[in-house]
Amino acid sequence: MYPFTADVYAAKNRWYVASFSRDVSRKPVERWILDEPVVLYRKKDGSAVALEGRCAHRHFPLAEGTLVGNSIQCPYHGFVYGPDGRNERIPSQDRPSARCSIKAFPVQEKWRWIWIWMGDPALADISLIPNHGEIGLEDPSLTTDEILHEEFEARYQLIHDNLMDLTHVAFLHRNTLGGGSDDTASAEFLERDGDGWMEGERTIRNVPTIPHFAGYLGYDGLCDRIIGQRFYLPALHFGWDRYVYPEGHEQAGTTFGKLLVYHGITPARRNSSHYFFAIARDFGREAQEQMRAATSAVIQEDVWGLSHVERVIRSFGGTPPPEFSARADTHQLKARRKLEAMIVDEQQALGA
Amino acid sequence: MYPFTADVYAAKNRWYVASFSRDVSRKPVERWILDEPVVLYRKKDGSAVALEGRCAHRHFPLAEGTLVGNSIQCPYHGFVYGPDGRNERIPSQDRPSARCSIKAFPVQEKWRWIWIWMGDPALADISLIPNHGEIGLEDPSLTTDEILHEEFEARYQLIHDNLMDLTHVAFLHRNTLGGGSDDTASAEFLERDGDGWMEGERTIRNVPTIPHFAGYLGYDGLCDRIIGQRFYLPALHFGWDRYVYPEGHEQAGTTFGKLLVYHGITPARRNSSHYFFAIARDFGREAQEQMRAATSAVIQEDVWGLSHVERVIRSFGGTPPPEFSARADTHQLKARRKLEAMIVDEQQALGA
Amino acid sequence: MYPFTADVYAAKNRWYVASFSRDVSRKPVERWILDEPVVLYRKKDGSAVALEGRCAHRHFPLAEGTLVGNSIQCPYHGFVYGPDGRNERIPSQDRPSARCSIKAFPVQEKWRWIWIWMGDPALADISLIPNHGEIGLEDPSLTTDEILHEEFEARYQLIHDNLMDLTHVAFLHRNTLGGGSDDTASAEFLERDGDGWMEGERTIRNVPTIPHFAGYLGYDGLCDRIIGQRFYLPALHFGWDRYVYPEGHEQAGTTFGKLLVYHGITPARRNSSHYFFAIARDFGREAQEQMRAATSAVIQEDVWGLSHVERVIRSFGGTPPPEFSARADTHQLKARRKLEAMIVDEQQALGA
Repeated sequence: MYPFTADVYAAKNRWYVASFSRDVSRKPVERWILDEPVVLYRKKDGSAVALEGRCAHRHFPLAEGTLVGNSIQCPYHGFVYGPDGRNERIPSQDRPSARCSIKAFPVQEKWRWIWIWMGDPALADISLIPNHGEIGLEDPSLTTDEILHEEFEARYQLIHDNLMDLTHVAFLHRNTLGGGSDDTASAEFLERDGDGWMEGERTIRNVPTIPHFAGYLGYDGLCDRIIGQRFYLPALHFGWDRYVYPEGHEQAGTTFGKLLVYHGITPARRNSSHYFFAIARDFGREAQEQMRAATSAVIQEDVWGLSHVERVIRSFGGTPPPEFSARADTHQLKARRKLEAMIVDEQQALGA
Repeated sequence: MYPFTADVYAAKNRWYVASFSRDVSRKPVERWILDEPVVLYRKKDGSAVALEGRCAHRHFPLAEGTLVGNSIQCPYHGFVYGPDGRNERIPSQDRPSARCSIKAFPVQEKWRWIWIWMGDPALADISLIPNHGEIGLEDPSLTTDEILHEEFEARYQLIHDNLMDLTHVAFLHRNTLGGGSDDTASAEFLERDGDGWMEGERTIRNVPTIPHFAGYLGYDGLCDRIIGQRFYLPALHFGWDRYVYPEGHEQAGTTFGKLLVYHGITPARRNSSHYFFAIARDFGREAQEQMRAATSAVIQEDVWGLSHVERVIRSFGGTPPPEFSARADTHQLKARRKLEAMIVDEQQALGA
Repeated sequence: MYPFTADVYAAKNRWYVASFSRDVSRKPVERWILDEPVVLYRKKDGSAVALEGRCAHRHFPLAEGTLVGNSIQCPYHGFVYGPDGRNERIPSQDRPSARCSIKAFPVQEKWRWIWIWMGDPALADISLIPNHGEIGLEDPSLTTDEILHEEFEARYQLIHDNLMDLTHVAFLHRNTLGGGSDDTASAEFLERDGDGWMEGERTIRNVPTIPHFAGYLGYDGLCDRIIGQRFYLPALHFGWDRYVYPEGHEQAGTTFGKLLVYHGITPARRNSSHYFFAIARDFGREAQEQMRAATSAVIQEDVWGLSHVERVIRSFGGTPPPEFSARADTHQLKARRKLEAMIVDEQQALGA
């Protein structure tokens, strides 16, 4: 399926963001993840539970049900499932049935999001979750905020494509981040690879400070910006945007502001996705609402644009005409290949 | 197609409810039944007519047309069809054409609904319509009322499944019929089979009188309820809910109220259905609007629930994961088998 | 695909109306034509441009982009295409790429519509556009007006079927053109064929002047009407409706009013179409808004009716039951055959 050559579309034995913490409570909520219905709720001790979102009996969506202690009861015939997915009660008979169980998905709550493992629970290796210390989410000197969860009609690969080619910033975000300049697109680009991730970084010199942020940064002159992004395959992008006084300034080379961004990308269905966006920053701490509005506006531009691309692809029956790739797409194409290889490897391991 | 194993989904040579009488008039109305468009109207003498709802000429929906005497005229090029489906006029030529005819479906108006036979008219045996005398619809001591016609997105088998497993009452209808108790689910269950029907009955002891009805019954203490339902395959369920003074009451064993219910279930398309719901009762006669609201609310809960199940099934591409059946599902599974056998038998008869 | 027997549905190497002139400006607009996205805009000198509506890079709809001089810039990564479809800029690199080009479609602006050639540009023969002088669009004594562009859900062949069988006028347009009479349907019919076109004409005697127009014509008695229509295959119908004083009138035989109509029919997708409707007339010149409203109402009846037919056809999965054709359909069936032959010939030429 475009943009992959195989029909596979996503790796299952990996961690994905299922939700922001704040959206999971004692009121069950349904999320489709990797084409499976999931119901999320919290036990009485506050820990998160993720179960198959469908009663094993007659397919009723469990998110419409009610919690009974740490268990969930289907609203159709009253079947009850424990947080481990095991049937605990069938009202029409004396005993529950061991055969009547639903999947329980491993979850890990870190920072303010809930990671889920949709594949084989036996393989759920916590060390595969990106290290939250490395990416600033445990740094008390930063203000973090969950900005937006959007479920929308676009295959998840389009979001990765978008994030792996930041030359779009000057255009798609020209009214917000881009500042009207297209220097981003032509700036020098440095690539690095690590264990489970790949990243790219650009330094753009002598550009205006982003109007959105200038007030909070207390500086509206020209600056250098160091913009980078690391892709922890297959589910999280961690980005940084550092503002540095430019050559000629008395503090040339000093960083006067730092914005970190986190894009959790989770396939909902083959052609729709969840976008979980969060930020951390060392400026504008007092202006939470304004920062939310400003950064949310940026991601909404991506959602708008990728929905359009998805629409065009579907208009061609899912197989668009051949695409042209520029030299700057090398980084993106490498990410596509890594992602597809991860999926193919998983398929082969399952088949072996 | 789920829940059947074959691709067939419904029997054609059977009577189904096409409409309540009140919805058929001199203004034609379109109904899709068993994947065919049907136009319903009344002749000048008041008798109901059901024709193929599509002009034989260029597929125009005849329900958009107008009546000319007992005939119907297509609004596109003015072709006229009689109540027997025979072409009576082609405006562009002097004579009608015998080749230009549409199907006329046998109909029978009984009580306040109109039964239709979508299959071979030569086989339309009136005795196959459930005997209205046996089910209380001709009993002058009862107040009858047509409550609701709903066309909604759920394959008709889901409605039968729902009606064949009344353990759902305590849960899906907990805010209306269920009264917050789940005794229904665990009560003793008696099954009987008859000619063309199968039924099941439960007696539930010492339960609160349904709050919805207590006012009309003039009694709000505990009672015994005898709840049963007979399925006249493939199209009508007849149910009864009798309220009996319980052991210890001075009139123990006496029925103090009776509610009869009628569920006409008609496939519209493979994945959508018509639900015709009617009631008869010996209480609350003066409170027609309130009884309508109360019983309509119950069926709306079913419509809500089954729409959810249909949604989940479709999310799995129409083939959901395997289902678990409890011991209490024996009755429902028997009905499924009988229904599927009826369809397969019909197919084989057609093929022979 | 119904009503054709082959799967082909439209000829590509032909001119179609893409837009009214007024709808193309310096703000790009998207139109789907023959299953391809097209972006329309004007160069600085006012001439119209039609390009493939999809960026060659990552499928972004170019109509969301902005004009840079005579070129268009994709809003995603800033790729720029000239009015010939050639890539002129890739912001992330020094040079544009010759391989990164999009289709440029030949266009011809005549009267107040823009004709487009979706097929092989080398075959775009301007003489295949219907001669505008012959059809009154260059006659200064007539008032012309573009009435309506409607994109709607109906395969384009249904619109041709409709226009090739004017016996529908008395019925589908009974409240507007038909005047309540069905004389149109039974009137004598004359057929003629020409180079690239076929036409039919009816004279209807002693019918009331159309109420819609009587005020402007200054005459509301009986008249003769000469109603004809010429189909320039595959994309334009030119019709005339002449009002003539009838036998017995002192000016019997004199035309006292003339309405010319133009139906540009363009497939959008296999099952949806663009309808471009325009008129010319020698009466009611002072009443442009009223004439627009009156004639637009007529076409809206066609749109309403054909949307219904398309709905019924789709309800049968795209293949409706066999249709009946009357003697009056000979003309329509001939048009269908010519249209399908044009498509098949084109396919064979491509294959040769």
